[in-house]
Amino acid sequence: MIELKPIGIIHTPFPEPKGMPSQPAAGVGVKATIEVFPEFRDGLSDLDGFSHIILLYHLHKSEGYKLRTVPFMDTVERGLFSTRAPKRPNPIGLSVVQLNKIEDGILHIQNIDIVDGTPLLDIKPYVPEFDQQPEIRTGWLEVARKTVSDRRSDERFEL
Amino acid sequence: MIELKPIGIIHTPFPEPKGMPSQPAAGVGVKATIEVFPEFRDGLSDLDGFSHIILLYHLHKSEGYKLRTVPFMDTVERGLFSTRAPKRPNPIGLSVVQLNKIEDGILHIQNIDIVDGTPLLDIKPYVPEFDQQPEIRTGWLEVARKTVSDRRSDERFEL
Repeated sequence: MIELKPIGIIHTPFPEPKGMPSQPAAGVGVKATIEVFPEFRDGLSDLDGFSHIILLYHLHKSEGYKLRTVPFMDTVERGLFSTRAPKRPNPIGLSVVQLNKIEDGILHIQNIDIVDGTPLLDIKPYVPEFDQQPEIRTGWLEVARKTVSDRRSDERFEL
Repeated sequence: MIELKPIGIIHTPFPEPKGMPSQPAAGVGVKATIEVFPEFRDGLSDLDGFSHIILLYHLHKSEGYKLRTVPFMDTVERGLFSTRAPKRPNPIGLSVVQLNKIEDGILHIQNIDIVDGTPLLDIKPYVPEFDQQPEIRTGWLEVARKTVSDRRSDERFEL
């Protein structure tokens, strides 16, 4: 067993998963803040030089999981690990978001798909040499991803 | 407190952090395998259509953390959250790796910077619309990242 504890809270305009943009690319323009707890704020130095950051957070609204699920962007059941569905054996969410500024331990971010009150676990700088890849294949998502930015989460909350 | 449990084990040629490529871009060509535990293998369906996957794993060799650290790729102390150093309040590692094939619950992957025996927490498909960003700034890393692929981890293991 591995034990984690929140280092902050993510505040967003989305009280519930329903109606939320299904991924950051669909949440373009949506602004939010991250409150990093005072005891961790010293670790935020130098972060403001980065235009994008990776957030890891606890998918605290997710309970249980199924190893096969019909993703939000498809009509066919898929293996859970080939989807970004939030109901996972270890419910850790990952989003790449734009960082606008940092003031008094509050991060002002943009382009999000995260529920209000989500516990933050980690912040990492986004670095193209590590995090971007050329020549990508995306399996079952190949068709659906072309229209991702028009989609909104439905009740299943299961891209 | 959030409790997580491994869903598999990552097998790599790197017994220790020392001497390991410091990030996937530096581990180009290095091959490894992931053993997903039998009870989770049903969730691997459809994953083989994706050329790249995101691994989340427990940085099990990391103990404790400092909120300011001299990163492997720099000589100046930086805020921890502006680095990919493994000693973090929540020691979760993230790597984007190439997926070559899946056979009998074993994922054959390439381009890695992970220690042998690392506990796997999650696998997510890599999707450019979510995970890639145009027009990136990378703060203190702007100079260092141009030479990232030539670097190797030293004893500090702290990019």
